[in-house]
Amino acid sequence: MTTGKLEPTIEEIRKAHDRIRPYIHRTPIMTCRSINEMAGCEIFFKCDNLQKVGAFKIRGATNAVLSLPEEEARRGVVTHSSGNHAQALALAAKWRGIPAYIVMPEDAPEVKKNAVRGYGGKITYCRPTVADRETTAARVQEETGATFVHPYDNEDVIAGQGTAAKEFLEDQPDLDVILTPVGGGGLLAGTLLAAKAIKPTVKVLAMEPANVDDAKRSVAAGRIMTNETTQTIADGLKTNLGEKTFPIIKRLVDEVISVPEEDILPTLRVMLERMKLVIEPSSAVPLAPLLTGDLKLPGLKVGIHLCGGNIDFGAIDWAHIQAPRRDR
Amino acid sequence: MTTGKLEPTIEEIRKAHDRIRPYIHRTPIMTCRSINEMAGCEIFFKCDNLQKVGAFKIRGATNAVLSLPEEEARRGVVTHSSGNHAQALALAAKWRGIPAYIVMPEDAPEVKKNAVRGYGGKITYCRPTVADRETTAARVQEETGATFVHPYDNEDVIAGQGTAAKEFLEDQPDLDVILTPVGGGGLLAGTLLAAKAIKPTVKVLAMEPANVDDAKRSVAAGRIMTNETTQTIADGLKTNLGEKTFPIIKRLVDEVISVPEEDILPTLRVMLERMKLVIEPSSAVPLAPLLTGDLKLPGLKVGIHLCGGNIDFGAIDWAHIQAPRRDR
Repeated sequence: MTTGKLEPTIEEIRKAHDRIRPYIHRTPIMTCRSINEMAGCEIFFKCDNLQKVGAFKIRGATNAVLSLPEEEARRGVVTHSSGNHAQALALAAKWRGIPAYIVMPEDAPEVKKNAVRGYGGKITYCRPTVADRETTAARVQEETGATFVHPYDNEDVIAGQGTAAKEFLEDQPDLDVILTPVGGGGLLAGTLLAAKAIKPTVKVLAMEPANVDDAKRSVAAGRIMTNETTQTIADGLKTNLGEKTFPIIKRLVDEVISVPEEDILPTLRVMLERMKLVIEPSSAVPLAPLLTGDLKLPGLKVGIHLCGGNIDFGAIDWAHIQAPRRDR
Repeated sequence: MTTGKLEPTIEEIRKAHDRIRPYIHRTPIMTCRSINEMAGCEIFFKCDNLQKVGAFKIRGATNAVLSLPEEEARRGVVTHSSGNHAQALALAAKWRGIPAYIVMPEDAPEVKKNAVRGYGGKITYCRPTVADRETTAARVQEETGATFVHPYDNEDVIAGQGTAAKEFLEDQPDLDVILTPVGGGGLLAGTLLAAKAIKPTVKVLAMEPANVDDAKRSVAAGRIMTNETTQTIADGLKTNLGEKTFPIIKRLVDEVISVPEEDILPTLRVMLERMKLVIEPSSAVPLAPLLTGDLKLPGLKVGIHLCGGNIDFGAIDWAHIQAPRRDR
């Protein structure tokens, strides 16, 4: 487990980028005139839904795996996740030629188990509780000597996620605002560190579903608050902030905006229909309030990070998704 | 109605490209390593799902509208279509500042009516029969003096659709084979004329659903054969070949391949999940036999034209789409 490191500097984010660049895609930035007209601002989408494993998570996982000293690396890496981080860590470990031990709940979807196996990850199943997940990961760690790589509360992971904002501002330096979804805060913390160092005038707004608004409440309270429910379709954003991500977010974020649950799927549908891009529900959260009119950024150049594109089409009732609230 | 013109030359396709270039996107070519591994060849996808109006149809419609002499143009254009050609003609007419009269069946989906209206098209409703559609279009034509622009059986439309293959071979000159979906044959005829002129050694295979295999039977019989059913999810490919498209296809196509209906949606799903690209079912038809193993092009560089991305998500039973046949 990484401990005691300080938060990543911009120099460390630059080094992370040099380290992972041969492995990851420099994802494109896309625009859509009709969405700009609906939102009343000029939006630039950073397409990490087109990234390896279909999500930005490969950035942090690859940086963490490649940063390990040879001796430690040889014993492998371990994590608990049923989401994008699990696939990302398995693939990054495969690139380095070391084992990846992934602890997953036994009821995880078959498609996610197959994806991890496809990248050569070794799965250990646990019961679907936080307690059993952590106990099982600790046991695997002890048995194998593998290094635990947390999905977000890890400096190397945060530095890796920061490379997305670095690319974003290199390719589109005139952005006024960046809207970043926030779950555990790895992407948001990395974005804040990179963006504010590269362009101090850029605003960074954190976007989360109203049903899991721990980030908004944590920043207001000055301490980490937890979610009482996980009732959101944006499954990547259910997590609470971590001890390493929270201080960065508290110090640097300009505002945290919570998005009504009912606005997420209508926005997802607009993205599919207008941009022809598959995104996961978490990626629809930042755009949603611009389409409903709850958030107005008139005339500004707005960067939106499409964090991933892994979606279970069969789990969504497509026939009953409404138009965005303002257009009904 | 255009009559008596000869089939477009490569020079006319070049002129068409110059004419429409300021209005349309030069669509990107995308690749996907995991799909290449599944298919056993190197596939280049020409993304006209990302084209204006979400389909290649804007190429032909724009060329037809911009080719009209000023006097004729002023009276507007008319067509009957409930599909991508209707939207394309409406938008092309808007660009030229002339009226577009679109004859649509009264039971056409609301979303398609709205799209045509959004581009400023004037809709006249007809009963959902071929006879009433043609009668109504003839009446509108007579009343307005507008020029009829057929969705595919029109030389200017064919020349416009040929610009997609021209861009494809300019950007990826080492293609060995191009797989093109075929419905009425506008895209296929344009592709054949452009591709065989630019690179005589390139093979062009026409791909159609087995349930509407009129192209395969027509080429075999040497005359236009019709479909007895329109039972396919690939709604863009239901049409029979036309009098202007058939002779070009008959003379130049290397092979027509029919694709089992059951293979279309599994392929669509692979495209959504692996490439994160929204395509319409017609665009999945060329890839399908490469994923099932029915078509083998080992080691070749294969171009696939993604003809469009307009799909009604609510009309598909996503939860019950199987994996491609070979992987079950």
